[in-house]
Amino acid sequence: MGIPEIKKMIADLSSKKIGMFHKDFLLTWEKSADELQATFLVADILRAMRVENVSPRLWHSGIAVSNFRDNSTRTRFSYASACDLLGLYVQDLDEGKSQIAHGETVRETANMISFLSEAIGIRDDMYLGEGDKYQREVAKSLDEGVASGVLPDRPTVVNLQSDIDHPTQSMADLLHLAHHFGGLDKLKGKKIAMTWAYSPSYGKPLSVPQGIIGLASRFGMQVSLAHPEGYGLIPEVVELSKKQATTSGGSFQHVNSMEEAFQDADIVYPKSWAPYHVMQQRVPLLHANDQAGLKDLEKQCLANNAKFLDWECTEAKMKLTKGGKALYMHCLPADITGVSCKAGEVAESVFDRYRDDTYREASYKPYIIAAMILLGKRQDPAATLGQLLERAHAREIL
Amino acid sequence: MGIPEIKKMIADLSSKKIGMFHKDFLLTWEKSADELQATFLVADILRAMRVENVSPRLWHSGIAVSNFRDNSTRTRFSYASACDLLGLYVQDLDEGKSQIAHGETVRETANMISFLSEAIGIRDDMYLGEGDKYQREVAKSLDEGVASGVLPDRPTVVNLQSDIDHPTQSMADLLHLAHHFGGLDKLKGKKIAMTWAYSPSYGKPLSVPQGIIGLASRFGMQVSLAHPEGYGLIPEVVELSKKQATTSGGSFQHVNSMEEAFQDADIVYPKSWAPYHVMQQRVPLLHANDQAGLKDLEKQCLANNAKFLDWECTEAKMKLTKGGKALYMHCLPADITGVSCKAGEVAESVFDRYRDDTYREASYKPYIIAAMILLGKRQDPAATLGQLLERAHAREIL
Amino acid sequence: MGIPEIKKMIADLSSKKIGMFHKDFLLTWEKSADELQATFLVADILRAMRVENVSPRLWHSGIAVSNFRDNSTRTRFSYASACDLLGLYVQDLDEGKSQIAHGETVRETANMISFLSEAIGIRDDMYLGEGDKYQREVAKSLDEGVASGVLPDRPTVVNLQSDIDHPTQSMADLLHLAHHFGGLDKLKGKKIAMTWAYSPSYGKPLSVPQGIIGLASRFGMQVSLAHPEGYGLIPEVVELSKKQATTSGGSFQHVNSMEEAFQDADIVYPKSWAPYHVMQQRVPLLHANDQAGLKDLEKQCLANNAKFLDWECTEAKMKLTKGGKALYMHCLPADITGVSCKAGEVAESVFDRYRDDTYREASYKPYIIAAMILLGKRQDPAATLGQLLERAHAREIL
Repeated sequence: MGIPEIKKMIADLSSKKIGMFHKDFLLTWEKSADELQATFLVADILRAMRVENVSPRLWHSGIAVSNFRDNSTRTRFSYASACDLLGLYVQDLDEGKSQIAHGETVRETANMISFLSEAIGIRDDMYLGEGDKYQREVAKSLDEGVASGVLPDRPTVVNLQSDIDHPTQSMADLLHLAHHFGGLDKLKGKKIAMTWAYSPSYGKPLSVPQGIIGLASRFGMQVSLAHPEGYGLIPEVVELSKKQATTSGGSFQHVNSMEEAFQDADIVYPKSWAPYHVMQQRVPLLHANDQAGLKDLEKQCLANNAKFLDWECTEAKMKLTKGGKALYMHCLPADITGVSCKAGEVAESVFDRYRDDTYREASYKPYIIAAMILLGKRQDPAATLGQLLERAHAREIL
Repeated sequence: MGIPEIKKMIADLSSKKIGMFHKDFLLTWEKSADELQATFLVADILRAMRVENVSPRLWHSGIAVSNFRDNSTRTRFSYASACDLLGLYVQDLDEGKSQIAHGETVRETANMISFLSEAIGIRDDMYLGEGDKYQREVAKSLDEGVASGVLPDRPTVVNLQSDIDHPTQSMADLLHLAHHFGGLDKLKGKKIAMTWAYSPSYGKPLSVPQGIIGLASRFGMQVSLAHPEGYGLIPEVVELSKKQATTSGGSFQHVNSMEEAFQDADIVYPKSWAPYHVMQQRVPLLHANDQAGLKDLEKQCLANNAKFLDWECTEAKMKLTKGGKALYMHCLPADITGVSCKAGEVAESVFDRYRDDTYREASYKPYIIAAMILLGKRQDPAATLGQLLERAHAREIL
Repeated sequence: MGIPEIKKMIADLSSKKIGMFHKDFLLTWEKSADELQATFLVADILRAMRVENVSPRLWHSGIAVSNFRDNSTRTRFSYASACDLLGLYVQDLDEGKSQIAHGETVRETANMISFLSEAIGIRDDMYLGEGDKYQREVAKSLDEGVASGVLPDRPTVVNLQSDIDHPTQSMADLLHLAHHFGGLDKLKGKKIAMTWAYSPSYGKPLSVPQGIIGLASRFGMQVSLAHPEGYGLIPEVVELSKKQATTSGGSFQHVNSMEEAFQDADIVYPKSWAPYHVMQQRVPLLHANDQAGLKDLEKQCLANNAKFLDWECTEAKMKLTKGGKALYMHCLPADITGVSCKAGEVAESVFDRYRDDTYREASYKPYIIAAMILLGKRQDPAATLGQLLERAHAREIL
């Protein structure tokens, strides 16, 4: 990498047809192929600039709102790093975790926090049927705020995980794959096994597997979704992924066997999640703060999970993959058998071999988030990046 | 607006006689007319600079302390936005909410947090007789710290709401009025109705109504204060407002009828607050953390409130105002009948019509806070702003 | 002070033999004499730059992680101020206070928070035998992250207080002494009394007295450590301090009498701490969250403390010191008799006389922390500082 490579990527970016300005990044399947590629390009450009000690700081001042309705360390740091890289100061909006505001409160709060804000990152993955809806309500309020002249500019909303999609994760994952295999175009025809795995916990959101099948199916990959019966994802997302796979020249397989999914896979992504219907049952219990009901549901769910203890990514299963050498992926933290739990998603020796790969996978997230913000805030992102390059302000005095 | 307009405002500012350097902004009635006007001017200049993409970032580094003894979203974001706009990093001081430190602890903490700090924003409105006192104790400690050579510079204290005044709110409100009516001088003779309104909650601080009557009475306005019997404000603030109204060529009316206050009003500000004597009774209960006592007091107070359910800003009452078209104001969030509660401060249709106005009202607060900080930190603020304009650093790369 | 003085200090710095680049600052006794002096020099240079309105902002963007496992106001503000001064945005890592992660979790978290981070400050002083160990585990994980190419750069770990040492405190204390007495070389031969003092609380960490004896003994001082029988520090630290005192041409006295320690002392540092064996007993109780057990231990410990009520820094004891005028030191807050408690570490009149000195003592901490970060991140710190001076960017527009 070097300055000439960065210039080439900026030229490449300027050839993309994108309409992301003053829009939000909520679901990858709402974005065109060019827009996805633009996001990857900007992420790579920002990363390369940093390596070359060219500051990608766009803003001399500006606020980035963070709204985490769920605990988070990884995404919080990724978001803070992305915002800081662009020059934005992160201010937390803490509305409490127990219930989501609607209507007047959302409209008002969205405006009140946005007078000098450039971006709003929202994580809300606990309540099936609500996270994405809430993000759209915020976005609509911002549109109205701009239309009425209350807001001087439109902050861009970035989905930091909703009930439906987890685009900062899936986009970072795909960028990792692009780097690993030597280019986005190299993903065509590669088989990726997105499979459920056993975990001694419950209630893990569906957004990661949904995000992966919803995005991998855009790049001509052979997507294999596997889970025990009764552990389905949101049906609409599965349907959409099937269609996308066909359109992009890939394929989509939906099986109830980890082994079948692993067969000849180039990439495996074994990860636990709660069944769709359980997530549905949880919502009224969470709203009612019904601890006894939640405890009961947990018990049932864990008892059911226990029937699928063999859904573990073991060395034996890895042998089934292409040349026994599929790339193992995980959004972290993984439930590692004998390390973080007695029995979990992955065998210790498998995880050990791929640990650095999973760390590398995670390392793309700050740049993906920064790219999403930049693309939501600039009509001609290539021109902006060109200016940053020309300005050549050092990120650090050496 | 444009650069020439900004230059004109800076010239105007340089003609004002002000002595705010190394002072604090605690109560508006401690400031001279020129000082209030300077604050409005600096706020407008900073806002205009931002619109023109001229960065008002004064500091390359520097700390702004925030000390919120009460929950806050709006003021927190306003303060963070103001500080960030000027280049300051906000560091929270969390001393807990239950009790206010005094003496040695205040002196020590004030110094410990100020070695590299430029501003200290304090919100403390719960304890009648204590919030303002505490802010003065901090300010005095800072003076001593500078005098003894411990502190290299004097951070400026900004009152983000005390038991007595809420100057960042009232100043933003007045700036909103100046913009709405076409200038501060246009406020002369305008009638403003600051009236109590029914709310199904209790314990709302007195600082907003006190701040409004204490500031509006400086500009020759016809101030009408209305509340049910027994819902008085701090008597000294009412007295002072009366005197100010006379001095400034306005008037002051004190009535027990919302209708009377609304009659021919140009502006109405219907907002609930707890009676003065209730706020007094609350203090020892809060100190003792006497939950039962607080519950009892709440019950009494809500029962009393319920007698005044008709103190609602309805369409019928709005018809009483000048041409039926008075400007509705609120510091937000408002208790909207049928929206946020069964019966509240304002009818839904009235609020709907003025929603954008209330949002606009709020939008001035970050700039008012930034102006207060800048004026507390610069002996010749016009010269500083002139330099910022000349430097012409872009706030954002477009 | 002025620019020529700063240049002289930078020249002085460039003559030091230091190997702090990509290392951490965990224990002062792991640093060479030149390295300690370099740290003092950089702190003084940064402070002088700020006074001269030369911005020491090294980074245009960058993250500084703060990990406080214990409440803190002073150190938190010092760390935030130091990081902000250098251009770093502080992002808190909140892992909860109840238990320390190990193994996989530490390795993973250390990498996840470091993709764009320059510094990691950790405070962990509650668990004897664990704080320092944890910091080393983080450091090792970072080394591995860099080696495997996961991390683009090595963040430097700064010990903000561990179970063993409190280097940001002790280094600030020594810099204060250097300024007070006219130079580091003037400390040679000065007697410093690090003595236990009575406090009505318990569980105060050992790291302050250990840090002081472990550092003062490097500069040829006459170190006198005093405490009641049974209030010993970690034996290894005492042994090491003895040896260092000999090597540096100083002396080390270990007594059970405050009076003896004060005799002819140039400096007195009376401060309470919990006995070593009590801190050891606390660890399993804390891990088990055994509130009853902790309460019992506290009771025993307070009862034992009460036997030593006369270990107070009184006017009478101050008369024993050199000319009755020893410099009183404290890391603050002090337990002041009749002010913060009925009977405490120091008499009110003594504390009053030295209050400003203790504030001044504290004022060096932000610069010491900034120096530690800079030295961990730059191979040629003198060259970097020279560039900052040449760049001559104003820290604030005047």
